[in-house]
Amino acid sequence: MATLCRPAIAVPEHVITLDETLALARTLHAGHPQLGLALRLIENTGVRTRHLVQPIERTLAHPGFTVRNEVYEREAKRRVPEVVERALAHGELTARDIDLIVYVSCTGFMMPSMTAWLINTMGFRSDTRQVPIAQLGCAAGGAAVNRAHDFCRAYPGANVLIVACEFCSLCYQPTDLDVGSLLSNGLFGDAVAAVVMRGNGGHGVQVERNGSHLVPHTEDWISYGVKDTGFHFQLDRRVPGTMELLAPALRGLAGEHGWDVSGLGFYIVHAGGPRILDDLCRFLNLEPATFRYSRATLTERGNIASAVVFDALARLFADGGVPEGTTGLIAGFGPGITAEISLGSWVGAPAEGARPRRPRAISTSDIALVHPTVPRRFPTGTTIS
Amino acid sequence: MATLCRPAIAVPEHVITLDETLALARTLHAGHPQLGLALRLIENTGVRTRHLVQPIERTLAHPGFTVRNEVYEREAKRRVPEVVERALAHGELTARDIDLIVYVSCTGFMMPSMTAWLINTMGFRSDTRQVPIAQLGCAAGGAAVNRAHDFCRAYPGANVLIVACEFCSLCYQPTDLDVGSLLSNGLFGDAVAAVVMRGNGGHGVQVERNGSHLVPHTEDWISYGVKDTGFHFQLDRRVPGTMELLAPALRGLAGEHGWDVSGLGFYIVHAGGPRILDDLCRFLNLEPATFRYSRATLTERGNIASAVVFDALARLFADGGVPEGTTGLIAGFGPGITAEISLGSWVGAPAEGARPRRPRAISTSDIALVHPTVPRRFPTGTTIS
Repeated sequence: MATLCRPAIAVPEHVITLDETLALARTLHAGHPQLGLALRLIENTGVRTRHLVQPIERTLAHPGFTVRNEVYEREAKRRVPEVVERALAHGELTARDIDLIVYVSCTGFMMPSMTAWLINTMGFRSDTRQVPIAQLGCAAGGAAVNRAHDFCRAYPGANVLIVACEFCSLCYQPTDLDVGSLLSNGLFGDAVAAVVMRGNGGHGVQVERNGSHLVPHTEDWISYGVKDTGFHFQLDRRVPGTMELLAPALRGLAGEHGWDVSGLGFYIVHAGGPRILDDLCRFLNLEPATFRYSRATLTERGNIASAVVFDALARLFADGGVPEGTTGLIAGFGPGITAEISLGSWVGAPAEGARPRRPRAISTSDIALVHPTVPRRFPTGTTIS
Repeated sequence: MATLCRPAIAVPEHVITLDETLALARTLHAGHPQLGLALRLIENTGVRTRHLVQPIERTLAHPGFTVRNEVYEREAKRRVPEVVERALAHGELTARDIDLIVYVSCTGFMMPSMTAWLINTMGFRSDTRQVPIAQLGCAAGGAAVNRAHDFCRAYPGANVLIVACEFCSLCYQPTDLDVGSLLSNGLFGDAVAAVVMRGNGGHGVQVERNGSHLVPHTEDWISYGVKDTGFHFQLDRRVPGTMELLAPALRGLAGEHGWDVSGLGFYIVHAGGPRILDDLCRFLNLEPATFRYSRATLTERGNIASAVVFDALARLFADGGVPEGTTGLIAGFGPGITAEISLGSWVGAPAEGARPRRPRAISTSDIALVHPTVPRRFPTGTTIS
């Protein structure tokens, strides 16, 4: 059985706070007819700090897609190896033990992908399989776990390295002025995550089943405009309400496995925004504290795309894990609208180096519970409730 | 055991011949100091005809990456479904029988990827897994077969749909004037391929083992420059000699399986150019006719990237297949430099509708055997041997 070990995470050194984000929005969009709405939506995300690969002045400049992608490559090569080393150490493996690298990232594009560079640079074997995925967005963290699980089912005893490298700030588009874009500018952050799935041994989440669910006819709810200026993130106002459509898929997969989705011991889910977490509580009859790890990721780092689930899982490890045998789920949500869900049980003690501690208490007053409603392509002057 | 069934192929209606390509090169690059070399290299590819998604006048214009990618999306949605329908029919499956879609394409970028659109449009189940891969280039055909095989190993009885959609003409960059680019402009063509891998039953190649090999420190031999103007294909002069480095990987994987790589009954390989096929003959001690299907794809359609292996396999089917139990290999080569290799045996009669016939005889005079030497970033005026 394959076990997802303790993830390693790194966030860049440049930090922007909520207050700074709001002040910037007020300056940059002083005459915007929906400025007030945008500010409220940003405040309601509950995001307190975000980390960026460049200082804010450089982040706000758009030097063109050519330069943006050069920055992506440079920063990925600079930041990924150390995170991979830590993930290997957490899994008590070396590069030579890895049979497959799944590299997920939707914020830059390279061919060959970073998988080839990692193999050449970090001592992975020449016969390491490469699965680079760029087009699953925020769902790619869950997808990476699921494809790693499939691989370990196919080759019992094989080991997989997952890397999620997301520099969302490199997709900032200063000319996108709809409220959805203004909200996104205050929501997304940068991070690198890596984690090992061990075919034998290991401490963490032993994955037992995985599944994917596409909500029919929602392709245009989360999408990229691919343009001369790079990737333009396009968010539909219906996205925050997605959990009503995806909760049945979570319940269904758990049911197929003989589990009650409302009775699990841990929940590591993509924190796209606060309403996703609030709605999951509602539709799955769960307490808000259930999602404290995902909520903490959102609060401290913003929506870090495919890296969210690994950051949240790392917090569960840092919190001391859960008792052996505790059942839980991991779920990524993203464009499609796609959910990538896995079900598993906790095995073993936390990896060495984990610091058992209680997470910072998160009360309802600590996070925004107001549901942002993101308008879709709303015309200027429209009033959004 | 998983069986790769008969592929379905479609090429666009716009055709450009070798003579037209050479005439265009003479006109467009009249003053180019290496024009003579470029013309010889193009002639030596052996490519007689290529198919394009747009008339040549539109192909040569560069309306910007925004429009290029819009054309990609429009043409993919227009051309892929019919090919998928045929592939499903060849595999005697319906869309509801498919558990995973592997969509490979390096010539356009969409998020969500075409997998979501296909699921919504063609009646695939909502729980169909999606693996879109954009960053493995010409190796992605082999990679798709290998990941499909892994999936069928993980879930015995599962069925996989593979789609390779390559509109290489949408990566034509009129300002790239190095000889490698001029050669590429005369080498690549457009095509759509689809094929089903059945977990149970089916006629075709029953895959028994797969493997990947990365040639160390060759990342910059085949790469994309990702720019404001889109994807710029960059070809190093050392690429045509790659088989000296990859033939041992083919031999090694076959050896692990207890097979002599020089004694197989069919060889379906990526035809990146004529020297790749010539060198494989040399390094694996094989007759030129061994690669007649890959050679025919190159001659009639050019290098159609990840679709080559499926086009060549479709020719083997059209030729009546091989006797039950015949062993063979399928291999894609591409950026990394990466080889994606699978080994398998022929099972069953050819799918209904196959037209047993002999392929057009290909003699050594019919194809160019001169080895093109592609210069790497050579300065203008350099003499290339």
